[in-house]
Amino acid sequence: MKKNTRKRLAFKDYFQGIINGDKVILAQAITLAESRLKSDSVLAEKLVAKLIPLKNVSIRLGITGSPGVGKSTFIEAFGKYLTELGKKVAVLAIDPSSTKTKGSILGDKTRMEELSKDPLAFIRPTSTGNALGGVANRTREAVLLCEAAGFDVIIIETVGVGQSETAVRNMVDFFLLLMLAGSGDELQGIKKGIMEMADGIVVTKADGENLKKATQAQADFTHALHLFQLPESNWQARVLTASAIEKKGIAKTWEMINDNLAFTQSNKFLQRNRQLQQLTWFQENFELALKESLRKNVSIQKEKEKLERKILANEITPLHASKALFKKFLSAGNRG
Amino acid sequence: MKKNTRKRLAFKDYFQGIINGDKVILAQAITLAESRLKSDSVLAEKLVAKLIPLKNVSIRLGITGSPGVGKSTFIEAFGKYLTELGKKVAVLAIDPSSTKTKGSILGDKTRMEELSKDPLAFIRPTSTGNALGGVANRTREAVLLCEAAGFDVIIIETVGVGQSETAVRNMVDFFLLLMLAGSGDELQGIKKGIMEMADGIVVTKADGENLKKATQAQADFTHALHLFQLPESNWQARVLTASAIEKKGIAKTWEMINDNLAFTQSNKFLQRNRQLQQLTWFQENFELALKESLRKNVSIQKEKEKLERKILANEITPLHASKALFKKFLSAGNRG
Repeated sequence: MKKNTRKRLAFKDYFQGIINGDKVILAQAITLAESRLKSDSVLAEKLVAKLIPLKNVSIRLGITGSPGVGKSTFIEAFGKYLTELGKKVAVLAIDPSSTKTKGSILGDKTRMEELSKDPLAFIRPTSTGNALGGVANRTREAVLLCEAAGFDVIIIETVGVGQSETAVRNMVDFFLLLMLAGSGDELQGIKKGIMEMADGIVVTKADGENLKKATQAQADFTHALHLFQLPESNWQARVLTASAIEKKGIAKTWEMINDNLAFTQSNKFLQRNRQLQQLTWFQENFELALKESLRKNVSIQKEKEKLERKILANEITPLHASKALFKKFLSAGNRG
Repeated sequence: MKKNTRKRLAFKDYFQGIINGDKVILAQAITLAESRLKSDSVLAEKLVAKLIPLKNVSIRLGITGSPGVGKSTFIEAFGKYLTELGKKVAVLAIDPSSTKTKGSILGDKTRMEELSKDPLAFIRPTSTGNALGGVANRTREAVLLCEAAGFDVIIIETVGVGQSETAVRNMVDFFLLLMLAGSGDELQGIKKGIMEMADGIVVTKADGENLKKATQAQADFTHALHLFQLPESNWQARVLTASAIEKKGIAKTWEMINDNLAFTQSNKFLQRNRQLQQLTWFQENFELALKESLRKNVSIQKEKEKLERKILANEITPLHASKALFKKFLSAGNRG
């Protein structure tokens, strides 16, 4: 067994280090927030609570796309473009597969080699853990820590095949979807609803032989987007093409994001959305705590399984069964 | 004040009447299930529970479409086609606007005049009421009552602009979306995600001057559907055109539905889906009961509002706030 040899700093050292923008201490603080040790997570929560009033206002971006779309390459080119503008950029990569394979995150890190050496950049893979709602909580805390450390743009990267997209969409100002021009089969890999969440789509690898296909895909996606209702922000999502290799479309992407922010600032959606995201975080966590306590309640779970068997055997209606379970919950339930 | 003069029958009269396929008694039993009187709904639940083991296996169809798409005209033509094949057809129309306007349902009823006179047909607008989850519960009970009364095809009609579609999707075997060929503006009226739920799309009013546009729309929708991932059933949704006036595309629609049922029967999805729908109904109702009890708990609600104000004032993190609320819930909460 490998012993956990990580040393914990004192609260004030984390606090001061983050305020000073110390990337090593920032990374350690995020590790704290990700830790399963109760004492670690309590310390992290305290830290976040203390840092919140001091936090810098950053732009929060979600970037998603299926594997193979060239996400890391695009984010590296985009990140470098931003640091050249003098912006401090943090990239938080959520990889739902990481707990199983342990491979892909390291792969991503290697591929963003240039950006990771940039003094203005901070790249951090986020371990998702197994806990329900764990990703969302940890990433939200990591975002707040990065903001307190003075980063101007926080990029949250997801793989675009799981459920993490909705969670990420609920913590960012702008949600960017990377797509690849290709056959219908490849397009079917896009998870339901992800296109509808996007504020913008960038068709990647729009260079060389691919250029024509990419331009066609741009037109197709633009058409498809027009089938959707406008989102609450009233922002009409745009579709661009980009080539990370030829450094094309990168500036345009940044321009699109800034257009969106100016738009949502003027119609007051930006601030309202951020407030709503805070309240959603609150609500979700409360429901999570409730569900967890139900899940851990052995007598409720046993009763539930018994009732499910009865339902499938047509011995009880689902309506009656739910009433029976709720009665059980009220009588003995939530303290178990 | 108008007094409720409706007379309640004895349990055995409802029971026997439904088994005999008596449409008047069926209608009265549905009224019972929709009633807000506790004694009524308890009787209805008892009735459903008693009828479940005897129930006939029917085909459950959801049909949705925006206002103006010609839903009633299509359903009338489709229903008549089925009764001519000797099928008993029940139409349950859910109109979320009915509690406010009281108008549109009557309108629908008048428009389905021919079908409503058909001895093999039964048409019933379902009042949605105001209760959370009310539509789903009432409609599910109405479906079971209709099945017990021997109907072969149960059509659940929704307006296609509200949230009722997901609920309906969760209680049917086949979900049909009616669309109109038209400008991009009209298409934006389609609520997000509804297209993705459809097992089939029928472009209505494909006749006369409209025919060319309808055929073009058919091609467009087919293309758009291919952007989506295949659903769990592995069924690739199809797009047809139909004209209720010229009685075209009606038989094809029925053929598509039967193809789907044969497909999902052979890959076992049909039965699994029905079982899952039962368990979902159970789960949803339990959660509903839980939420209702929280909503009615004044001290929890007050604490929640207090914490929300603190969150928006940056005085507490959402994470800390949710823990505080959960603590409150555990100490005094769920019996309030």
